[in-house]
Amino acid sequence: MQLNLSTWCEVKDYLKTQKDIIIPIGSMEQHGPMGFIGTDSICPEIVASGISKTQNVLIAPTIPVGMSQHHLAFPGSLTLRPTTMIAVIKDIILSLTGHGFTHLFFLNGHGGNVASIKTAFSEIYAEHSLSNKPSSVHLDLYNWYDGKRVEEIENKYFKDVNGSHATPSEISLSFYAHPDAVKKAELSPRVAPTNQFRDCFDFQNNFPDGRIGSDSSLASIAVGKELFEAAVQDALEIYKQFINNKP
Amino acid sequence: MQLNLSTWCEVKDYLKTQKDIIIPIGSMEQHGPMGFIGTDSICPEIVASGISKTQNVLIAPTIPVGMSQHHLAFPGSLTLRPTTMIAVIKDIILSLTGHGFTHLFFLNGHGGNVASIKTAFSEIYAEHSLSNKPSSVHLDLYNWYDGKRVEEIENKYFKDVNGSHATPSEISLSFYAHPDAVKKAELSPRVAPTNQFRDCFDFQNNFPDGRIGSDSSLASIAVGKELFEAAVQDALEIYKQFINNKP
Amino acid sequence: MQLNLSTWCEVKDYLKTQKDIIIPIGSMEQHGPMGFIGTDSICPEIVASGISKTQNVLIAPTIPVGMSQHHLAFPGSLTLRPTTMIAVIKDIILSLTGHGFTHLFFLNGHGGNVASIKTAFSEIYAEHSLSNKPSSVHLDLYNWYDGKRVEEIENKYFKDVNGSHATPSEISLSFYAHPDAVKKAELSPRVAPTNQFRDCFDFQNNFPDGRIGSDSSLASIAVGKELFEAAVQDALEIYKQFINNKP
Amino acid sequence: MQLNLSTWCEVKDYLKTQKDIIIPIGSMEQHGPMGFIGTDSICPEIVASGISKTQNVLIAPTIPVGMSQHHLAFPGSLTLRPTTMIAVIKDIILSLTGHGFTHLFFLNGHGGNVASIKTAFSEIYAEHSLSNKPSSVHLDLYNWYDGKRVEEIENKYFKDVNGSHATPSEISLSFYAHPDAVKKAELSPRVAPTNQFRDCFDFQNNFPDGRIGSDSSLASIAVGKELFEAAVQDALEIYKQFINNKP
Amino acid sequence: MQLNLSTWCEVKDYLKTQKDIIIPIGSMEQHGPMGFIGTDSICPEIVASGISKTQNVLIAPTIPVGMSQHHLAFPGSLTLRPTTMIAVIKDIILSLTGHGFTHLFFLNGHGGNVASIKTAFSEIYAEHSLSNKPSSVHLDLYNWYDGKRVEEIENKYFKDVNGSHATPSEISLSFYAHPDAVKKAELSPRVAPTNQFRDCFDFQNNFPDGRIGSDSSLASIAVGKELFEAAVQDALEIYKQFINNKP
Amino acid sequence: MQLNLSTWCEVKDYLKTQKDIIIPIGSMEQHGPMGFIGTDSICPEIVASGISKTQNVLIAPTIPVGMSQHHLAFPGSLTLRPTTMIAVIKDIILSLTGHGFTHLFFLNGHGGNVASIKTAFSEIYAEHSLSNKPSSVHLDLYNWYDGKRVEEIENKYFKDVNGSHATPSEISLSFYAHPDAVKKAELSPRVAPTNQFRDCFDFQNNFPDGRIGSDSSLASIAVGKELFEAAVQDALEIYKQFINNKP
Repeated sequence: MQLNLSTWCEVKDYLKTQKDIIIPIGSMEQHGPMGFIGTDSICPEIVASGISKTQNVLIAPTIPVGMSQHHLAFPGSLTLRPTTMIAVIKDIILSLTGHGFTHLFFLNGHGGNVASIKTAFSEIYAEHSLSNKPSSVHLDLYNWYDGKRVEEIENKYFKDVNGSHATPSEISLSFYAHPDAVKKAELSPRVAPTNQFRDCFDFQNNFPDGRIGSDSSLASIAVGKELFEAAVQDALEIYKQFINNKP
Repeated sequence: MQLNLSTWCEVKDYLKTQKDIIIPIGSMEQHGPMGFIGTDSICPEIVASGISKTQNVLIAPTIPVGMSQHHLAFPGSLTLRPTTMIAVIKDIILSLTGHGFTHLFFLNGHGGNVASIKTAFSEIYAEHSLSNKPSSVHLDLYNWYDGKRVEEIENKYFKDVNGSHATPSEISLSFYAHPDAVKKAELSPRVAPTNQFRDCFDFQNNFPDGRIGSDSSLASIAVGKELFEAAVQDALEIYKQFINNKP
Repeated sequence: MQLNLSTWCEVKDYLKTQKDIIIPIGSMEQHGPMGFIGTDSICPEIVASGISKTQNVLIAPTIPVGMSQHHLAFPGSLTLRPTTMIAVIKDIILSLTGHGFTHLFFLNGHGGNVASIKTAFSEIYAEHSLSNKPSSVHLDLYNWYDGKRVEEIENKYFKDVNGSHATPSEISLSFYAHPDAVKKAELSPRVAPTNQFRDCFDFQNNFPDGRIGSDSSLASIAVGKELFEAAVQDALEIYKQFINNKP
Repeated sequence: MQLNLSTWCEVKDYLKTQKDIIIPIGSMEQHGPMGFIGTDSICPEIVASGISKTQNVLIAPTIPVGMSQHHLAFPGSLTLRPTTMIAVIKDIILSLTGHGFTHLFFLNGHGGNVASIKTAFSEIYAEHSLSNKPSSVHLDLYNWYDGKRVEEIENKYFKDVNGSHATPSEISLSFYAHPDAVKKAELSPRVAPTNQFRDCFDFQNNFPDGRIGSDSSLASIAVGKELFEAAVQDALEIYKQFINNKP
Repeated sequence: MQLNLSTWCEVKDYLKTQKDIIIPIGSMEQHGPMGFIGTDSICPEIVASGISKTQNVLIAPTIPVGMSQHHLAFPGSLTLRPTTMIAVIKDIILSLTGHGFTHLFFLNGHGGNVASIKTAFSEIYAEHSLSNKPSSVHLDLYNWYDGKRVEEIENKYFKDVNGSHATPSEISLSFYAHPDAVKKAELSPRVAPTNQFRDCFDFQNNFPDGRIGSDSSLASIAVGKELFEAAVQDALEIYKQFINNKP
Repeated sequence: MQLNLSTWCEVKDYLKTQKDIIIPIGSMEQHGPMGFIGTDSICPEIVASGISKTQNVLIAPTIPVGMSQHHLAFPGSLTLRPTTMIAVIKDIILSLTGHGFTHLFFLNGHGGNVASIKTAFSEIYAEHSLSNKPSSVHLDLYNWYDGKRVEEIENKYFKDVNGSHATPSEISLSFYAHPDAVKKAELSPRVAPTNQFRDCFDFQNNFPDGRIGSDSSLASIAVGKELFEAAVQDALEIYKQFINNKP
């Protein structure tokens, strides 16, 4: 059930029996010469969509732009400042809790978002703790690629060259989601270097074509399909724990 | 050309010959018993997509959540505070101008966004004016429903009962975009009341089912198709003026 | 009744029978070679003063500096950033509603303020909507020059050359308010160009002497007097609707 | 020379020979049963006006609302939060320094503003110090009642009962400025109590009619006239030091 | 009793009988060629520690970095922006009042902090006054060097050359606190100049070695010991008034 | 070398040969019935102090209050909101980089600070990336307890009952730092429960005496001494990599 395509009456009905919602959150940032700029939004969006096919759960619209300051030297990358992102997440959480939602599951596609999302959660909780008003909201953050089934597939196909940005894993999944838009590119070197990074200029110095430690050329729609099924199972498992274990 | 599905290399190439981009911006808010919560995002998104088929222009991902505080009494509606929305728009504009984009066209689907978007533009310009640094960016805001071709169709099919929220016009367009999700509902009264509103509680008092002045039941995919073609022509005309007339 | 010259005991008495107040709001910005920098504050201030002579209503002090970033290239212009202006309006509204005022009528003199004022209203309402606390405040915004009586006079005397900044209309009214300070200047061209504008540098490029589309030289104290009477009638009419129609 | 009633061309000429400006700053807050709510704005405004008659200096419009949170329990009092006030002062200073003004003299009428104004000055300077960009602006704050000539008159007429809020001194000066609006009231006790205060509820508990330590009933237009002349001389002396001693 | 070294159970017990706490607040800024960068934090910290030996009172950890923008041209100086400092003080006050503390005594070591601390207090009170929620907190600010006993010692040993920054008085006290770290330096001139200052560049121009009006070379551990005892007595006296006189 | 006890001249000399600094950062929050409220500040402070004895490096004053919203239900705990903490860290970083420091090593004692500190780093970098100004600063975050030597000791003495809050490990280290303040308490149950937590009310429900998964009673000064030596070695190793590997 997509919030986007529901009416308020349908959401009202949904809330009579359940109070949980999945919020895909991604980014709009370069993913090397072959990867879509929207990779990190496309992936959690399709995984959420997969979940909603086996589980009756409401899916919020994907938050499309994340914390991607380090990618700004590559054309087309967009970022929110971390403090802007905190404000966005806070307003969305307040909107949802106002309707009675109690379990909000942020299904994330971008490692660079993690600290900002967690900080937004703490900002919300701090507001309650400082004003002596207990909160009824449960907030969880899960990266679609963090489950064991996904890891197995990554190890099977991309061992050692999955890297940490523009990975063949995430590119496969995004290709599976958008088969008509699949790209090809000569990668040189095949496997990108690894390193730390600071601002976008430092990032570009370290990673001239935008990839970190990955060989994106191994990406395929076929592996994307396997990853999709694995990621849906992984996320579903975590999601069920989330809505069951917490009162 | 969708930013979402492009690589940074493709955007780099694009920027060699043109510096303009269309940014659809909408909202996630109730649209009465028949309208999608995502109506105001779906409409500019599909219009932008239509434009990109006749004009080589880059389309940014749709900003899905807008300023919808007045709808929060209806389940599923989300809002950003105006000041959050200003921060979001500012960061996106700064990201794009950093890449060399000079003409940013916000294609809007929600009247309630207008003041906040204009204020965001002024905040950006004020930064330049107060720090004595001339800006090279041109910012424009256009509501997809403001053109004369759209107005003609609205007058033809929905005269006097198009209203101002959950209009059969916007619902038709969103149905055309998502024919599989079309809703039906009994509307009572057929034509919703009109009035002003303040916060979401006042809004709900005035408009018990969420519509303002409209008879949503007149919406149809067929009219949606006509509206789509008209809206693309209207927006394209304004867009061309925007990128041609300003140096 | 001027808040400025009242005691708190007088305001306490006033609040026993009515809860409405008029807040003039203007700007401090260039108005071409003949217009006062304070034109947009002077005009709503004198109109408010006129209203208070026929209607028992409390007039707040004029907010003298507005959103005028686009005028900063002209010496003497002052601006608040939009976000600062939102904070100012918010604090003043909170102060007044704390005393029990329920109907706040912002009588505006500057088109450039409109988006920021409306956004401030939404920010207030969003606070209520997001925290589930219905608001009792009614906020209205009216530009002194938007009524039909004023329009008639403008059409009679300044047709086609009233323009949109440093208009002979607003300059006439400000001259009527300050006859001792009336200015003369050679205008070249007599009728200023029209165009859009972005930051203050772009504004100055487009409008070298600061006027937009206007022939300020037609301004006179005599027409100012007519405008004053018309504007008071126009605003009074709207004001009465505002305090009567809303519960 | 009043900024309010000047054209940008006149300000441009002024800046050819001098770069200083006086900015009256006050408050809108109760001043006991006899004092105007606008007392603290009226006083620096008339003193600034007096200065401009003997010294060629530009006078900015009075900032009418200040930091008066402690007065909010008395109807009609308005406040800006301190952080809002800092933003306002910052924007006005940036506007003026952008035009080339180098010496900004804030002529203050309200003790409660002092910490916020000084903090705003530090915020501006901190911006320069933290970004390694030396500032050319000189900022000064002077309370109109702090000079020795004013003190002598206060001692002569109001010794021991001038108090610290709703003083016969400030009320005399405001009565001199607005003789038609002079109020009378029975004061009980004649001399108000003194104490410290915290928020507006605590203030009202301590000072039931709003005065602190003062016998406002001693106020008169005649003493107001003497105070006016003294305050102009005092402020002028400090002002000349300000613009002469600092390079 | 040091908060730092207490358990929550001990604080819980403390709160059964008293609700007061002392919060030392200082800065991290140059103090001339001989003075510690931490002088202004060390001094209130040791005075607070002295108080806690004669009076059962809880001492919060010292806030180590203050508003020192004017010192940034000297290596090692740190500053918070005033608005950051306001946020810090606000959060700490809210944390403490949440536990039931009612009397918070800020024992300050840095004159440059005063306006920001007072503004933070007003920001807290304004929040209460604007939201119609009376506050139970009592906030006080006391500079350790402002008492009469300290003044006597300063007059006895450093008359006329104590100055206002890097004073032999504060340096003596910090040397007494850290005898192993005592510094020596050639001072030229012995007595530093006095003047006003703006940003850190202006400060450095006026005060090349960082001192203002002081002869730091007179500092000694012996006088530091006398100052310590005097400052503890002075502060204790004020502190007792603070907790006794206010209900 | 402690910044606190240095003069600006000494820091100036230091900067001639090295540009690195260690910034201990902790929290002020309950650590169960036996642990100091200052545990998380005391630990990185003493580790930093240990490092400075074998390595010539400047140590900044410890940031004493961190992000501890979840502990506020326990008396004496203090918190900064995450956004306040971001502002504090940003100002300190800007102060240091203004002096020419290039390598800033945050030595952290509190897991709850991690997301906020990382977010602050990103906020700084985002400022650079969005304004097209490459940054020269290198920021690193290291938790004193994350090294392999510390882990070995924890496994040796506290295996399975070290837990994640009020661990015998951190309490041992803080006891070693403050042997005179060592506490004893009956713990029931000996080993605290484990769980997740949200705001401070939820935390207290889950962990009635404040501990998570730990048996604090195993803490001892003797193990604290071992941990101190291990932690210094661990941190030094990481620190040397930090200052050597990055240009």
